[in-house]
Amino acid sequence: MSQPKISDSAVRRLSLYLRALRELERQGGDLVSSRELAHLCGATSAQVRKDLSLFGSFGKRGRGYSVGELVATIEEILGLGRRWRVALVGVGKIGSALLGYRDLEGRGFDLVAAFDIDPAKVGRRVAGVEVSALGELERVVAERGVEIGIVATPPGAAQEVAERLWEAGVEAVLNFAPVKLTAPGSAAVRTVDVVLELEGLCYQLSSGAEPRERRER
Amino acid sequence: MSQPKISDSAVRRLSLYLRALRELERQGGDLVSSRELAHLCGATSAQVRKDLSLFGSFGKRGRGYSVGELVATIEEILGLGRRWRVALVGVGKIGSALLGYRDLEGRGFDLVAAFDIDPAKVGRRVAGVEVSALGELERVVAERGVEIGIVATPPGAAQEVAERLWEAGVEAVLNFAPVKLTAPGSAAVRTVDVVLELEGLCYQLSSGAEPRERRER
Repeated sequence: MSQPKISDSAVRRLSLYLRALRELERQGGDLVSSRELAHLCGATSAQVRKDLSLFGSFGKRGRGYSVGELVATIEEILGLGRRWRVALVGVGKIGSALLGYRDLEGRGFDLVAAFDIDPAKVGRRVAGVEVSALGELERVVAERGVEIGIVATPPGAAQEVAERLWEAGVEAVLNFAPVKLTAPGSAAVRTVDVVLELEGLCYQLSSGAEPRERRER
Repeated sequence: MSQPKISDSAVRRLSLYLRALRELERQGGDLVSSRELAHLCGATSAQVRKDLSLFGSFGKRGRGYSVGELVATIEEILGLGRRWRVALVGVGKIGSALLGYRDLEGRGFDLVAAFDIDPAKVGRRVAGVEVSALGELERVVAERGVEIGIVATPPGAAQEVAERLWEAGVEAVLNFAPVKLTAPGSAAVRTVDVVLELEGLCYQLSSGAEPRERRER
């Protein structure tokens, strides 16, 4: 692709703009000013203008940006102009909560498979998704063309499960287990780590550091 | 405090070092080299040495760092040399999963209260924590000295709940609702946003960008 590479924090801001823009679109909004968009996302107008200028000139002088055009462009930049097939491994509490998370489908993510090692869970449907045996992972991932794996297993199982996903061809893993996953070079991994977020808050409380959302967004 | 302010990404790395160091400590390790610590955290040795040098000189030439000393220092820097009192609002699927998350207590976070609006849940104990009525939030937060609030409500309720927490004196909020919270100036807020993480992965898959964990850690 010929797009310039974007930093993690810019990708994060584009996601936030996109969420706000979709909400505006839903409410029937046609145009949005950089100031309004900044306000909705907790950013500054200057930051919004700078981010959007990276991808071409969308602003109509004195009128603002076209909401629909911005949605389409940000979706294209982030690779969201299509649907993604997602599998979940580990149908415990967090896993069940994720399967029931309605927002995923609306944002382009289809949960097409779920796996658990517990025979009592296999064959059950959780939030409409049938739970398969962990032993079936490779076959089901291939058959359903899974592209993104969500790991919600106990920490001791996470690395092995992630390796099976990578070997089965899944290139991206979102990890909810509180361990660091060692990934092959080409794989994309993100970890959602509750303790790490809490520790970040403690640092802010202890140091009197300026809160993160106000500074960054 | 006289500490230098640390960037979000450095705070994040310190959290990761801390997790690895505690595991080493548990296994009886006395000393660790920057290379070993880097390997455990997916960082480079140079990054580890640079981060740690910011806070004084811990390395013993040719022998590595003292694990116990590093744990104590990082805990102090992050404000973790004490326990924190945490309340959860919204005992749905995600909320119940968080209440049952054993790692929190071991890392210094005591879940001292939980709230829900559903009368059927009030008075029940979930993972050992009694669920209080949402109407009791202010009283219970004050009585139990809650310092950190976790918001796991539906999106429409999150801002109001967060405002009640802030007004009750809770300075830090970890938000699991998929909305942007508008916080007063002094408050620390972090949002755990599953869709945003998935969108970041999609960008990496689509753009062929170098995976985040390998680049940053």
